Amino acid sequence: VQELKLNLEQIEKNGYDHFMLKEIYEQPEAIKDTYRGRLRINDGIIKMAGVEDNLEKFLNAKRIIIVACGTSWHAGLVAEYIFEELVRVPVEVEYASEFRYRNPIVGPGDVVIAISQSGETADTLAAIKLSKEKGAFVFGVCNVVGSTISRETHAGAYTHAGPEIGVASTKAFTTQITVLTLIALKLAKSTGKITNSEFHNYLAEMEVIPNKVEETLKSDEHVAAIADIYKDAGNCLYLGRGYNFPVALEGALKLKEISYIHAEGYPAAEMKHGPIALIDEQMPVIVIATKKGHYEKVVSNVQEIKSRKGKIIAVVTKGDKDVSALADHVIEVPETDELLTPLLTTIPLQLLSYHIAVMRGCNVDQPRNLAKSVTVE
Amino acid sequence: VQELKLNLEQIEKNGYDHFMLKEIYEQPEAIKDTYRGRLRINDGIIKMAGVEDNLEKFLNAKRIIIVACGTSWHAGLVAEYIFEELVRVPVEVEYASEFRYRNPIVGPGDVVIAISQSGETADTLAAIKLSKEKGAFVFGVCNVVGSTISRETHAGAYTHAGPEIGVASTKAFTTQITVLTLIALKLAKSTGKITNSEFHNYLAEMEVIPNKVEETLKSDEHVAAIADIYKDAGNCLYLGRGYNFPVALEGALKLKEISYIHAEGYPAAEMKHGPIALIDEQMPVIVIATKKGHYEKVVSNVQEIKSRKGKIIAVVTKGDKDVSALADHVIEVPETDELLTPLLTTIPLQLLSYHIAVMRGCNVDQPRNLAKSVTVE
Repeated sequence: VQELKLNLEQIEKNGYDHFMLKEIYEQPEAIKDTYRGRLRINDGIIKMAGVEDNLEKFLNAKRIIIVACGTSWHAGLVAEYIFEELVRVPVEVEYASEFRYRNPIVGPGDVVIAISQSGETADTLAAIKLSKEKGAFVFGVCNVVGSTISRETHAGAYTHAGPEIGVASTKAFTTQITVLTLIALKLAKSTGKITNSEFHNYLAEMEVIPNKVEETLKSDEHVAAIADIYKDAGNCLYLGRGYNFPVALEGALKLKEISYIHAEGYPAAEMKHGPIALIDEQMPVIVIATKKGHYEKVVSNVQEIKSRKGKIIAVVTKGDKDVSALADHVIEVPETDELLTPLLTTIPLQLLSYHIAVMRGCNVDQPRNLAKSVTVE
Repeated sequence: VQELKLNLEQIEKNGYDHFMLKEIYEQPEAIKDTYRGRLRINDGIIKMAGVEDNLEKFLNAKRIIIVACGTSWHAGLVAEYIFEELVRVPVEVEYASEFRYRNPIVGPGDVVIAISQSGETADTLAAIKLSKEKGAFVFGVCNVVGSTISRETHAGAYTHAGPEIGVASTKAFTTQITVLTLIALKLAKSTGKITNSEFHNYLAEMEVIPNKVEETLKSDEHVAAIADIYKDAGNCLYLGRGYNFPVALEGALKLKEISYIHAEGYPAAEMKHGPIALIDEQMPVIVIATKKGHYEKVVSNVQEIKSRKGKIIAVVTKGDKDVSALADHVIEVPETDELLTPLLTTIPLQLLSYHIAVMRGCNVDQPRNLAKSVTVE
């Protein structure tokens, strides 16, 4: 009889070295769990009770205000682009901590969407209470079932991502985007802002996203090799445009959180207004340059960086030629609708942060100074 | 007869080593020039033809959209806080480069304010044209008289800051904030959102701001001594809350632009959601902690940084005790209304960047890779 030398944590990690890596790899399943029962292609509908029961409130909203912190705030920014494009309603994304300490403009008729993985984020909770006091309808997007925020909001939708243990949020982010995209599609369909055929195409594309995430995860070894080259960088820039601008912010936050490298995200075109002064041969620049996202403009941004000797790691659509010809390293993601690309482009950035942190000997699952959920103000 | 050994540039620099320093010191005069003829305390009015002629458009606006790039974008963020507080109208601040390449939600009844020092910024100009096509009323805030943007907008207000030669914008920023504050005050008065007595207090306080900027400039030597300590830093964080959150962003941008140190601004409370992982004894953190701006919350942020051995440079209200007791270095600014503090707190951050850049031997007026106005896309 051999004694089984596994502790509970090792079992929970399911063969992965870290919870973060396990959770990165769980994303195809987590996204499927998020849309399961909601995305009903055969019926041509999206089923979400929390939205249906309050459809009038959503449809009559003059504006939608999203409150969140950290990674959830980045998911909110992605949602801003998606909602404004599909639903044609103005969306304002606020840092919960800033919103709550102002005298914010919010009241009856406004819809507030609060996003929090744990459902316990103190600043977000305070923003919710303030919004309710002022008469707004508050909708929660949480992962933890029964959490305070899920109870304090008027209605909501869970992400169903399963427990997230790693302090650096990964599958919470992609499943938040999934839920918010489903809501946007449902509202756009209800108001006739998109045609039935457009709606069907989005549904069909969303359904295959888990497979495409799976395919994207195959870049893991390639990303690890890139990580090995840049693991000693002191600084890093992340650039994206449109739907992938918030992905650049989130990619930078991941690197900050677990590798302690000072990384910063920027909308690519803003680089000319200051940050380009930082570019030299020491500065790796991660550029998200999917095929449909103002591609030519990103190509010209990449050219500017190269002419200043910056090192480029480009996340591109499979088969890309132009950016790939200029970049030092290329990571491909499968083609999808531009609006859904954040669900794919995020993946290699998570892997890059993970591998760099491991190579630097950092405690990936428990980075210094950080708590999994910020329940203090 | 002695030949005068001064070239034109030296004459134009008026005894200062660099245009940037000259322009920093010009700010009391520039702000006065900005409000001259407009701020009429004796009559109890703010006179601005561009606003008066279009008062109905401003007052009927459901939302105000500000489009800008770089430093002007930061001025727009300050304006967002000021407009929402005083006028109670929702304001959305957009990167011009992102706005123009989306299908933005803008149309008849919307007011778009475009901010650009040069009046030639390509992305901002494109955003203006798009807004006009979609039927919005577009108001320009430019410095250069007769510039393209000043001609392409329906109406506008000049900053009257005088020529700005240094690539890193200084007086353009403070005068943009001045103009935007005057507009907000005028609208708030017109709608009765603020009382006559509040209006008068703001006017009186605005009138003495140039003196208080003058007083703030006296910290120059003290700031230079702090610069000498941190000139070799590889990274820097800037934190602020409320009105001073955008000032933190602008302070970081200045340091990036001219000293090539990777500096990043953050709303102070967001630090707990990631960036705090970066903090160690190598990381100077500049904290803007004026007395009325959620002071206790900032104190607790400062405590968190100190407990992680970060170095703190605090910009505080004169006579401050609590933050000063915790900080490694303290720079005082005179007391004023919280809403006007950005005009003061910005000054030491400009000086800090300037001195660090000079000490590092950087070309302050012509930083690498940057152009004064970005007329390409």
